[in-house]
Amino acid sequence: MSFVLKSTEERARLWKPMFARELPELPFHVWPETGDAEKVRYLAAWQPPENLAEVFPNLEVLFSVGAGVDQLNLASIPENVRVVRMMEPGLAEGMIEYVLWAVLSHHRNMFHYARQQGERVWKGAPNVSSGLFRVGVMGMGALGTPVLKKLAEFGYVCNGWSRSRHDVPGIKSYAGSEELDAFLATTDVLVCLMPLTAATKGILNRELFEKLPKGACLINCGRGGHLVQDDLLWALDEGLLSQVVLDVTDPEPLPEDHPFWSHPSIALTPHIASSSRAETGGEMILRNIVHYEDGLKMIGEIDKYSGY
Amino acid sequence: MSFVLKSTEERARLWKPMFARELPELPFHVWPETGDAEKVRYLAAWQPPENLAEVFPNLEVLFSVGAGVDQLNLASIPENVRVVRMMEPGLAEGMIEYVLWAVLSHHRNMFHYARQQGERVWKGAPNVSSGLFRVGVMGMGALGTPVLKKLAEFGYVCNGWSRSRHDVPGIKSYAGSEELDAFLATTDVLVCLMPLTAATKGILNRELFEKLPKGACLINCGRGGHLVQDDLLWALDEGLLSQVVLDVTDPEPLPEDHPFWSHPSIALTPHIASSSRAETGGEMILRNIVHYEDGLKMIGEIDKYSGY
Repeated sequence: MSFVLKSTEERARLWKPMFARELPELPFHVWPETGDAEKVRYLAAWQPPENLAEVFPNLEVLFSVGAGVDQLNLASIPENVRVVRMMEPGLAEGMIEYVLWAVLSHHRNMFHYARQQGERVWKGAPNVSSGLFRVGVMGMGALGTPVLKKLAEFGYVCNGWSRSRHDVPGIKSYAGSEELDAFLATTDVLVCLMPLTAATKGILNRELFEKLPKGACLINCGRGGHLVQDDLLWALDEGLLSQVVLDVTDPEPLPEDHPFWSHPSIALTPHIASSSRAETGGEMILRNIVHYEDGLKMIGEIDKYSGY
Repeated sequence: MSFVLKSTEERARLWKPMFARELPELPFHVWPETGDAEKVRYLAAWQPPENLAEVFPNLEVLFSVGAGVDQLNLASIPENVRVVRMMEPGLAEGMIEYVLWAVLSHHRNMFHYARQQGERVWKGAPNVSSGLFRVGVMGMGALGTPVLKKLAEFGYVCNGWSRSRHDVPGIKSYAGSEELDAFLATTDVLVCLMPLTAATKGILNRELFEKLPKGACLINCGRGGHLVQDDLLWALDEGLLSQVVLDVTDPEPLPEDHPFWSHPSIALTPHIASSSRAETGGEMILRNIVHYEDGLKMIGEIDKYSGY
């Protein structure tokens, strides 16, 4: 049996000695070199090769090198292949930094001051205490929960919404579609940190924006597919939203003629909120291989039917 | 004896009932109404009236409603009048938010991405861990120390510099002019949180910028007078500094034709980093009056000779 890495040169350079040290019995191949393809039991990749079942007929585990698995066509992955997403501490750190930056930027009027600077205007806006801002995070998983905890430390009123209820001290948890309206009604700053699935595609739409307090702020750090783009422009025009921060779009890169680029109330970043660190990412996969061979649960294994 | 407030209508509205409740024996006047001026023992103001000794001949304590006292001409204040600056918890909270926003913005390339958005460019910059950024705060007082503690929680390598050594866990303390060069050599992001005094006026100058690692970031939340403006433009031109965030300028507002407004590497905010909250500010002054009458030390009393 063997391991194949189909990813960046940096990961190959860092992971090869780590694997040699920790699992010296396991041959380590860097795609497109694979050794005997029938012996490949583990594959780590952002995108697996097409015709996965033919290329690696005895594959047992596919490790995504990213936090999400929405880049995969799960239906095309053989039923017996287990799929594991990357759960790496650096992912949460990066996301905490990004969301806190975006919330502080809105709360402390930094986007407004940047526009004022362009107009050579020196005028302070009222400084409102963080305790008067209600931040609602959609998705209370490995990213949403640590983000909520950090926001709560800064005095923001913090609410989370997800499929099932989560018991996190200091955070009010709303669960399921029947509690979505109540969650939205109490959300001044909405942060999307959900996985992209059939159930969440297009969830950031006109109907949802109408349920937020007027003038709310939207921060999308999920996937571009969560957002209905025309509905966003409509909600900004109508004043339902006052500020938007997008780290993800559909497609990426955002086409050059897209109206988001020049909208005065949209701040764009090129999908940089959070990325797995190569080194700790390799350690997570090593740990999961050991867990798997010992018959233990792998960290980040997904349910291929729900998609996360 | 009596108390005079010379400040905003909001403070007058909030403080009057607080003083009536806590110190009912002390008459409370709102400038320009002062009652019998000879009876005025306490004055709270941003700027006292001119000819202070003549207007209030029996004044004992002047409370500044702001964190600094550099707006006062200390030499013109009678020797027997004690001067107290505002030490209010909201001041530190606001400053922590502002400095963290500015450091995150630089660390996570947010100013760069804002410029890229203007050019319709979608391109991620390398994401560097916070542990590789060394943040140096000049001034380890009531604002600098809590700011350093919060930055350290986010994984930044944190150093402080001030006149005397401060023992803060996790923070390396540099003290005095003889350790300034060593402090600057290890500072990727320099934050100015010093009081403005004769000794610190113009301290952010060419000579100082030359001692920072090339491409450093400067965040000035002190006073405009700390900075030599022409030297800043020179340091940006030379690449000694890569990014600058200024909340304070000299003068304020910044004149409309000033080159800072349109410089691509300068982010300007209109002196909003931190302001004392009216309500807790009143509580601080009440507490200090009680301390003073009991012969105890007042919180925030300054040494009129050093200026802080």
